Parts: sequence; C-alpha cells; structure tokens
Amino acid sequence: MASQQFEPPSGTRDFLADALRRRERVFTQIREVFARYGFEPLQTPAFERLETLTGKYGDEGDKLIFKILRRGEHEATGEADLALRYDMTVPLARVVATYGSKLPTPYKRYAMGPVWRADRPGKGRFREFAQCDVDVVGSSSPLADAETVCALSDALDAVGVRDFTVLVNSRQALAGLLEVYGVPSDLGGGVLITLDKLDKLPPDKVAAELVDARSLSPGTAEKLVADLTAFDAVERMRGALAGSEAGRAGLDEIDRLLELAAPKVGKDRMAFTPRLVRGLDYYTGVIFEITAEGMPGSIASGGRYDHLIEALGGPDVPACGGSLGVERIIGLLDQTAEDGDRTDVAVTLIAPDTAAEIMGFAARLRDAGLRTEIYLASSRKLAKQLKWAADRRARFALIYGAADREAGVVTVRDMDTGDQSQVPPEELVAHLAGRCAPSS
Amino acid sequence: MASQQFEPPSGTRDFLADALRRRERVFTQIREVFARYGFEPLQTPAFERLETLTGKYGDEGDKLIFKILRRGEHEATGEADLALRYDMTVPLARVVATYGSKLPTPYKRYAMGPVWRADRPGKGRFREFAQCDVDVVGSSSPLADAETVCALSDALDAVGVRDFTVLVNSRQALAGLLEVYGVPSDLGGGVLITLDKLDKLPPDKVAAELVDARSLSPGTAEKLVADLTAFDAVERMRGALAGSEAGRAGLDEIDRLLELAAPKVGKDRMAFTPRLVRGLDYYTGVIFEITAEGMPGSIASGGRYDHLIEALGGPDVPACGGSLGVERIIGLLDQTAEDGDRTDVAVTLIAPDTAAEIMGFAARLRDAGLRTEIYLASSRKLAKQLKWAADRRARFALIYGAADREAGVVTVRDMDTGDQSQVPPEELVAHLAGRCAPSS
Repeated sequence: MASQQFEPPSGTRDFLADALRRRERVFTQIREVFARYGFEPLQTPAFERLETLTGKYGDEGDKLIFKILRRGEHEATGEADLALRYDMTVPLARVVATYGSKLPTPYKRYAMGPVWRADRPGKGRFREFAQCDVDVVGSSSPLADAETVCALSDALDAVGVRDFTVLVNSRQALAGLLEVYGVPSDLGGGVLITLDKLDKLPPDKVAAELVDARSLSPGTAEKLVADLTAFDAVERMRGALAGSEAGRAGLDEIDRLLELAAPKVGKDRMAFTPRLVRGLDYYTGVIFEITAEGMPGSIASGGRYDHLIEALGGPDVPACGGSLGVERIIGLLDQTAEDGDRTDVAVTLIAPDTAAEIMGFAARLRDAGLRTEIYLASSRKLAKQLKWAADRRARFALIYGAADREAGVVTVRDMDTGDQSQVPPEELVAHLAGRCAPSS
Repeated sequence: MASQQFEPPSGTRDFLADALRRRERVFTQIREVFARYGFEPLQTPAFERLETLTGKYGDEGDKLIFKILRRGEHEATGEADLALRYDMTVPLARVVATYGSKLPTPYKRYAMGPVWRADRPGKGRFREFAQCDVDVVGSSSPLADAETVCALSDALDAVGVRDFTVLVNSRQALAGLLEVYGVPSDLGGGVLITLDKLDKLPPDKVAAELVDARSLSPGTAEKLVADLTAFDAVERMRGALAGSEAGRAGLDEIDRLLELAAPKVGKDRMAFTPRLVRGLDYYTGVIFEITAEGMPGSIASGGRYDHLIEALGGPDVPACGGSLGVERIIGLLDQTAEDGDRTDVAVTLIAPDTAAEIMGFAARLRDAGLRTEIYLASSRKLAKQLKWAADRRARFALIYGAADREAGVVTVRDMDTGDQSQVPPEELVAHLAGRCAPSS
C-alpha cells in the first residue's frame, strides 16, 4: 500500500495524546462553565435521517452534507437514507420536537462534538470539526440573551482567551437603520450583506458595492458608509435610530443586553457595534460577535432567532443562542505540553524474576493516584531503561536490582536532578505521593 | 411531518442530560484509570477510507459497514469512498502504520468513543455505540498482558462493578489441548468454535455438535467435554497439558499472567479457565474474559494478538489488548440521578427592574463555582417561580422583591426545608458556598 493510504481521510485528523489532551482540557473547561449556568448537555447521534437535514442549509450547504448509502439489498440503488450531522441546531430542533414536554422550560442546552461538512479542506478548515453551542429554547426574556453572552464570555475566560470584546447589535436596529437612511425595503437584505463586509473591505469599496451590486443611490450609500465608519459612529447611530420605531426598539434591546451582561462580562468588554450584521438571516433580535486581540475574525457569535426552531421542523418557540469557535480557539491557545501530562513514576525492570514484585509496587502507586508506567520492552540494561523513563518525561524512576532486593529497598531516582535514594517498599507511596502532583 | 420522523434514526439514541452525565461520568472514571497506567488517548476520525475497512471484518462484518456516498459530481455514481468507523482496532493499525517512529515504543493507547454498525437494532443492541479499548503495541513482554488485565480490572473497580472474575486461558494451551486429546489438526478450529458454547449449551449438546458438525469421533468428543466441565477441570487440564510442548508453554503463559496481575487484581478474582476459547482467531497468546455477578456474558475481554496489526495493514509488531463492554456496563449500573446533578441556586425574578442586580448575584455565585440558574420564563408570580426552582432540584432559591431590596437583603430559601433567611448581597457567596457541594 502507498503510505498516503495510512493518512486519515482528507480533511480529518488523528489526535494523538498531546493534542487530544489539550482539546479535552478545553472541552472540560467549557463544560464546567456551561454547567454552572444550568445549561444541560445534549448528545445526538452522529447521523440523522437524510430528510431531516436536506433543505435546511441552503443549496450550497446541501452539497456539503455527507450522505450515507442505504444498506443490504438497497445498497445497489446508490441512494442515501442517512447523513452525518452538519451542525448542532437542526438536531436541537428535532429533539425539541420529540421530547417537548419532557424537557425543562425553557430548555437550556449545550452541545459539543464533531460535525461533518464536505468542504474543500484547507488551512484551519476541516471536514470533521468540533462545534460548541449553547441555546435557550422557549424563553423570550432578555435575560436569556444575557445569559448566553455571559456563558460564552465566561467560557472564554476559563480557557484562557485574553482581551476579548463582545460586539452587540440588533436586527431591529438594523431594520431601523435601513428605514432612517431611506433604503427601499426590497434592497434591505442585499444592503446588509454588503455592509457586513465593512470589517474586511475599505469603506469606499463597500460604498461602491452598495451602488453597483445593491442598486442603492450613491448619496445614500456614501452617507451610510461614512456614518457607520466614523470615529463617533455609535453616537451618530444612536441619534439616527431614535428617529424610527424599529430603531428605538433595537436600541432598547441592545442597551438591555449591555446592562444585564455587565455584571459578568464588564462594561468595558462590550460595545454596541452598529455595523455588525451577522450574515444569517434567521436572527430576529439582538446579535453579537466576540473578537479577541490577535485573532482575526470572531471567536464566538450568536443572537436571538425566534422562528428558526420552527423553520427547522420543531415547534414555534422563541430561542436564542451562540457558538464558540472552539477549533479556532484551540488552534490559537498555547501549544506547550503541560506538567499534568508527565508520567509520575517510571518503573524499570532489570531483573526478570522481580516482575511480580514490580507489578506490586506499580499497583500501590496507581492506587495512590500516581501515573505509573512499567518498562515493557525487552532490554535489561539500566541505561536504556532510564533513557525510556526520560522519554516518558517521568519525574521519578524506580530501580529494583538484585542488590536492592537483598537490601530490602527500592532505589528512587529523581529524573530531573539525578539524585537517588533508597526507600523501603512499604514506604514508597508515602515517599512519592507528596512529591508528585495528583494525576488527572 | 409524522412525529416518528422526530425520533433519532433507528438504532441510535439521543442522550439527554441525566443519561449523558451518567455516561460521561463512567467515561471519565475509566479515562482516569487508563491515564494512571500510562495509556495515552487516541482519537481517530469518525470515518475512514472505505478500502481501509473493507475485508477486515469478514463477509458478515463488511455488510454492516455504514458507507458514505461520494460527493459532488460523483454522487450520482452511487459509489461510496468513505465508511464509518466499525471498531477501534483497524484505526489503531492505520495510526501505527502512519506515525510509527513518532509513537512511543511500546505504544500504549486507549480509545473510547462511538463506532457504527448497521446491525439489526434490538434490546441493548445499537447502531451507534461506544467502544473502549486499551492496547499495547510493540511489546511481547508478559508484563504487557498483565498491565492490560490490571487496567481493565482497575477500571471496573472504578466505575463500581462488583464481584467480577477474570477468566484466563491461552491459545497455546488450547493448541496443546487439541494435541493431547488427539484432535486432527484440520478439525481444530471448528472444535474450538463449538467448545466456546460450553457456557451457553448443556455439555451433551456440545458433545453432539462436536461429532455432528465437527466430525470428531464420539469417544474424543465425550472425553473432551467431560474433562472440561468436570468440577476438577483445572486439575485435569493441568495434568493433560503437561504432556504437550504447546500445552506446557500455554500453562506457563497463564501462570505468568496470574502471578503478575495478582498484586492488583487479587488471586481470588482470577481463574485459569480451560474452556475459555474467545471466538476470534487472531489471538496468539493469553486470552481473557471478565464476567460479573448478575451480568450474563462478559463485560470485558481481550488477549495477545501478535500478527493482527500487520493483517490490518500495519507493521508486523507484537501486541495485546482488551475491550471494556462499556455500553453493557453503563446499562447495568445504578440509574439513579446523583446529587451532583442538582442546581445549587435558583434565582427568581419577581421585580423586573431588579434584573441587572440579579445577574450580578448570579455572576458572583457562579464565580464561586456554584451551579446557578436564573428564572427565564415570563411569570412574575413567586409561587410559580418556586415551583420552577423545585423542578430544577435546586438546593436554594434566591428571592429579591421590592421589600428585600429596600431592606438591603436577599431572601435565601432552603428548598429542602422551606426555611428562609435574609442575607446581605455581599455575604451571599459566603453564606451559600459552604452549604453547596462544589459543582462539577
């Protein structure tokens, strides 16, 4: 076989120990935060019925769904009946539809796990990647929006993301904006899509696109872009939005969210951001994105989407939620291995007839919670086995040769300093437990 | 849509909070044990290239593989190019082939996660289910076999399985058995498959099958079955096996494993079991099964399989390993919700203008690690909100009405006793932290 055939399939990854432990650590930290907020975990199957997924992600999305061939006699038809999970929201809608009254009201759930998309793989873009969502289904309270923002922000703090900012806007404020600037209502959607590019393109390009691609009058386009990108954009917008009912309602929503999330997030880490659009058109209320110093793009986002659950096949219930860009966050966090990954004790075996005694030492150390490994290769040379202990990043090595046995002691070698001490077997645990961190 | 369409696909399950937390708790306990033994986690993708999996599980197995349709322009061909993971061993062989020298030697890894098989769903039989494997690749040391048995046994202790026994045998001992009883070598494989049924069928049925289906002479069949099922079967077998070279080598292997695993497992929880066969013919050395009081069948099994990694496409390296029947174990463990799942503090909201203050209380409680929930539905009636707090199994409810606010206190209600006390907001954390268990 060509060696390429041993690589994982295109766009997927094997996670060996260090990378996996780093991922799991981040997932655990996030889970702990969500649990403190009373979000409940939900895990749905890796695949859904094909018809549950098709038509939910647009034409482009549909093409990226991994479909599973029917089985047995139906395999030859070449038809699919199942498909791999594409996101966490459609399964949520299905669960709300299935379990309705058995779920708490509101249903606050988090979901964290892989999703699969047949995208062209690229730098930082995978076909199997983790998503991490929190949602509150069945509450229209502004507190639900605030709880979502607080939980995500708290999770970012927990995993060690520094200097992030929560950008806040509202779909109602955007509707008011279009109204106040006299954008014809049939052009509104396209105008917003173009305005969404203000953080990537220079203002004049955006203004040009508003005219060329969105048929907006040059005067309106220029004024809109100038006001949104001015140093005092927030004040200009607050002034402008006050002149529209939708605008005022939007500002109220925004201010309410800023007020309610402030005790946790802090006022200085949140900002009303009038040009924040969020591409997806299912949002109905407040929207937000979280950006961090040194990380291009956003690391979390979300908002209120009061009719999405129904559109996805569930009941018509108000809902809000957000996503952590957990793959990006893991990719950007410090990659250094941590002390917790070290082996506490590496047990050498130089005299084969001591194997059973050695297993006994290991059993006692492990019972005391120490991460203990036994030499399993075939060399009987101490130097080679100490090299192995060093490779395993062991704190201590145990040596139990004929002389040790005769003297009734075990030699404990500090692998960092090279110091050795003779310890009676019955004192091994007491001797080592205090000197090793608890294993995880 | 018919409501059945909201069910998860046939053979799969949605895990809601309680069930998922129970599963995760078991997984975490097992992971901690494996880590203490120096087994490293490995996570491979949910799918592999189709050709990596086909031909590895026999004809029956091949039919149960979930195949993924090619995408884009190739979708219409009805061909598959990927397939869902069917077990943890083939991906291990692929990883050993890919990362060879980058892996520690020996490579001790555990893998825990879902696999998918298109089996007919039934009671306790799923199409998506978790597997949990430990393996040592690259060591032929008897210590590696013992470490595997100890790690699995330790994991069973950790998750709370009581009264289990490790049944031990050896492929070499079985070869010796066939030799000593004069079974023609071409009949050996079939004879072992039939003998494997001794724990399900009465001895005379097994003897009859040996004659009818396996062409064994009636005298040999009867003697074999009688000796294997005698009350002193172990002594008879020890005597018989001493007369064959393979038999003696097998007994040595078995005794070595019993000796080396004894410090951890305990002599009284292990037993040489001459009639233990283990169906899979890739085992080459010691084999074992773990059975538990009150659980039919085995809850863990494994052995040495020195050429399997090569047969699966990897290099030719000695290896041994075992599997925990983690779905069965979870299914049989105590199903009661545990205290750790309780909400610590349920925060009511009866005066809407106190929302921001309430968010502040919640933020401080969560920062102190307390699992805290805020009332997000629309009622402003205290009775209804206390009902919600009870439904959430909260230990305490916070009440902050106009009178409380005026008095500068928060009312803390003990939900178990109904006792209420007035606490100044700045003392809330101190008041509650000691009375709630740390949230997990």
